[in-house]
Amino acid sequence: MRERDASARAAVARSLARIGAREAEVRAWTVIDHDGAAAQAAAIDRGDRPLPLAGLTLGVKDIIDVGGLPCECGSPVFRGRRAFSDAAVVSRLKSLGMVVLGKTTTTECAYLAPTQTRNPWNVAYSPGGSSSGSAAAVADGHVDAALGTQTAGSILRPAAFCGVLGYKPTFGWLSRAGALSTSPSLDTMGWISKDAETSIRIRKALTGSASAASAGGLGFCRTVHWPKAEAAMQQGLERLAHRLSAPEVPAMPAHLDAVHATIMRHEMREELATLRLQHADHLSRELGALLGDTPPAYVDYKAAIAARNEIDIEALFAGMDVLLLPAAPGGAVPFGSTGDPCFNRAATLLGLPAVSLPFGLGADGLPLGVQLIARQDQDDMLLATALHVQQRVAFDHRPI
Amino acid sequence: MRERDASARAAVARSLARIGAREAEVRAWTVIDHDGAAAQAAAIDRGDRPLPLAGLTLGVKDIIDVGGLPCECGSPVFRGRRAFSDAAVVSRLKSLGMVVLGKTTTTECAYLAPTQTRNPWNVAYSPGGSSSGSAAAVADGHVDAALGTQTAGSILRPAAFCGVLGYKPTFGWLSRAGALSTSPSLDTMGWISKDAETSIRIRKALTGSASAASAGGLGFCRTVHWPKAEAAMQQGLERLAHRLSAPEVPAMPAHLDAVHATIMRHEMREELATLRLQHADHLSRELGALLGDTPPAYVDYKAAIAARNEIDIEALFAGMDVLLLPAAPGGAVPFGSTGDPCFNRAATLLGLPAVSLPFGLGADGLPLGVQLIARQDQDDMLLATALHVQQRVAFDHRPI
Repeated sequence: MRERDASARAAVARSLARIGAREAEVRAWTVIDHDGAAAQAAAIDRGDRPLPLAGLTLGVKDIIDVGGLPCECGSPVFRGRRAFSDAAVVSRLKSLGMVVLGKTTTTECAYLAPTQTRNPWNVAYSPGGSSSGSAAAVADGHVDAALGTQTAGSILRPAAFCGVLGYKPTFGWLSRAGALSTSPSLDTMGWISKDAETSIRIRKALTGSASAASAGGLGFCRTVHWPKAEAAMQQGLERLAHRLSAPEVPAMPAHLDAVHATIMRHEMREELATLRLQHADHLSRELGALLGDTPPAYVDYKAAIAARNEIDIEALFAGMDVLLLPAAPGGAVPFGSTGDPCFNRAATLLGLPAVSLPFGLGADGLPLGVQLIARQDQDDMLLATALHVQQRVAFDHRPI
Repeated sequence: MRERDASARAAVARSLARIGAREAEVRAWTVIDHDGAAAQAAAIDRGDRPLPLAGLTLGVKDIIDVGGLPCECGSPVFRGRRAFSDAAVVSRLKSLGMVVLGKTTTTECAYLAPTQTRNPWNVAYSPGGSSSGSAAAVADGHVDAALGTQTAGSILRPAAFCGVLGYKPTFGWLSRAGALSTSPSLDTMGWISKDAETSIRIRKALTGSASAASAGGLGFCRTVHWPKAEAAMQQGLERLAHRLSAPEVPAMPAHLDAVHATIMRHEMREELATLRLQHADHLSRELGALLGDTPPAYVDYKAAIAARNEIDIEALFAGMDVLLLPAAPGGAVPFGSTGDPCFNRAATLLGLPAVSLPFGLGADGLPLGVQLIARQDQDDMLLATALHVQQRVAFDHRPI
């Protein structure tokens, strides 16, 4: 009985039942691949050797290719586009035993225009973006994990808004091949999972690494954006820092956001040139404004890249292993916007691994997320720290 | 009459006539887009305002998407794949007035397995790779220019073997969106053109930059690979350096090639994971060996990235503006291999702009190429220098 429950087919059946019960309200998916999931699960259950991620189901953000499925990037420009083959990360996770259930909604080209997805905690609220469907699907129990990408705050913010764990790995660790490119210096592949244990399991399967110890020292970083944080976030995070014995460290350099904005604006204009030149009439107000705007001069872009490379990471960490800061200014924002990534840009700009996980509820009953950041390639330690924090905060609320 | 000759339709007609006369022998193309080229040319000729690149025809390497055309990456794995929309660089060049004639052959996934393309100077020889069809098509007069990509020596080597100009821009300048990713830290979009004037015209149209002066100081760099250069290359380049008053500068650091190899092997394995995991039976011996091999450990990969970033570029240039070195060990190699990129890896690894252009004929009557390298973002000066060298060497041989 236990074995049957853990089978890939049983996992798919559980996922599909939950999706069937909830999707009309949450709208996290652009397509559900019933046949593909059934075939993949049957092959896994038939297989000779046990696969490390067997029994886990996966959603894939709709800017990431899954062979044979539509991939429309949340834009009418890509309507009818069907992926020829799997993105690199998709084939790797499939080969490790995860079953792809389908594609999850993305904001238009992973930028700002909202999707139809609702926050499963309260459908009057946004799930965040741009990995909107991935966060909502995981939070609502449709799948164990879902792939996302982050260029500013597109994994951590929706994970925080939906009360689940978001993981943006060290820049460059996980291949982006087969995903829409929006900003080569910033785009980072990652995922959202129901809890720290699941993310640790996936990461271990991908790396073959052993268990890691959690952080020796945590630092509490308010950042220059602290005044934007809601009262519940400020108070909750101060209490959490106190419980975790995390002393305050200096705020991050104030020019981080401007450097990030210059790089992102220049690169998005370059990467999405075809949308600007051939499909200007089919862009949202948000993306149309970005691509239609006068871009930063190339020399200013290169100066921003140089400024990024000169930031003193050791000064940032001030002797600590992990920094603790808000994952977002507060809980989810009302439906119609995807929220503010101000607290997420630093880790993305610097290519640092970052995790968000829920630590409490705000005044409106929606989850609040704490963000943890580590030095490059300290991902295993970071995830172990996330597990430790998860156990300490013992957040046990559920959306419905 | 003059105006009619310069029209886009006349340019397409000239290209198609030449292709019709020669393609059976050269085999540079995977597909010719007669209808698309005619429609695009008509639209350009009909347009209200003159476009800066009107009258120029373009070939596109078959790892770069052109909307509606097949893009099969030189591999049976991608047979039947059709691009949904234009790569960023394709839509930009189209919008500037270039007409896409079709797709040019690429080695399998831009790696080593040769295409069916022949060297137009002598069909018993290779055109080089991986941008094989692009170099052959330009050299044989099919198009004015053709897009290529370089991860080791895949633009400069075929350009040198085919006696035309190859231009690998500064890393990161030209978007790779819509092209097969093989190595994010190395893959560079660029092009091959019939001469320096054409490349300068394209670059100016893309950047809006004004004319640049050529290099003040040229340095002659034999590199550690000098002993691999054929006698005709050694003697020809020594004479050319003398004519151009280019003193010898120190050889480049000896560990460049090992650093390049570690980065490329790790990243190709990551980017092409789907081929390794799902299509191992449909890979060439060359690519199968690369992807099947034990990859460098991740820590060794990151150490290679760090070693790359620590290389002292100023020491390399030794006070000169441009370095002059072989573009390849000699002329084209016999059909069946694509040649050795040993002289091309340094500029690719370091993201430096590089040009190759023909300066003489080897013992077998095939062209020899000289490579020019500048500091990052000195592309305009580099191309002006290439024009200066082109005028000095006055290479006026033609394939047939």
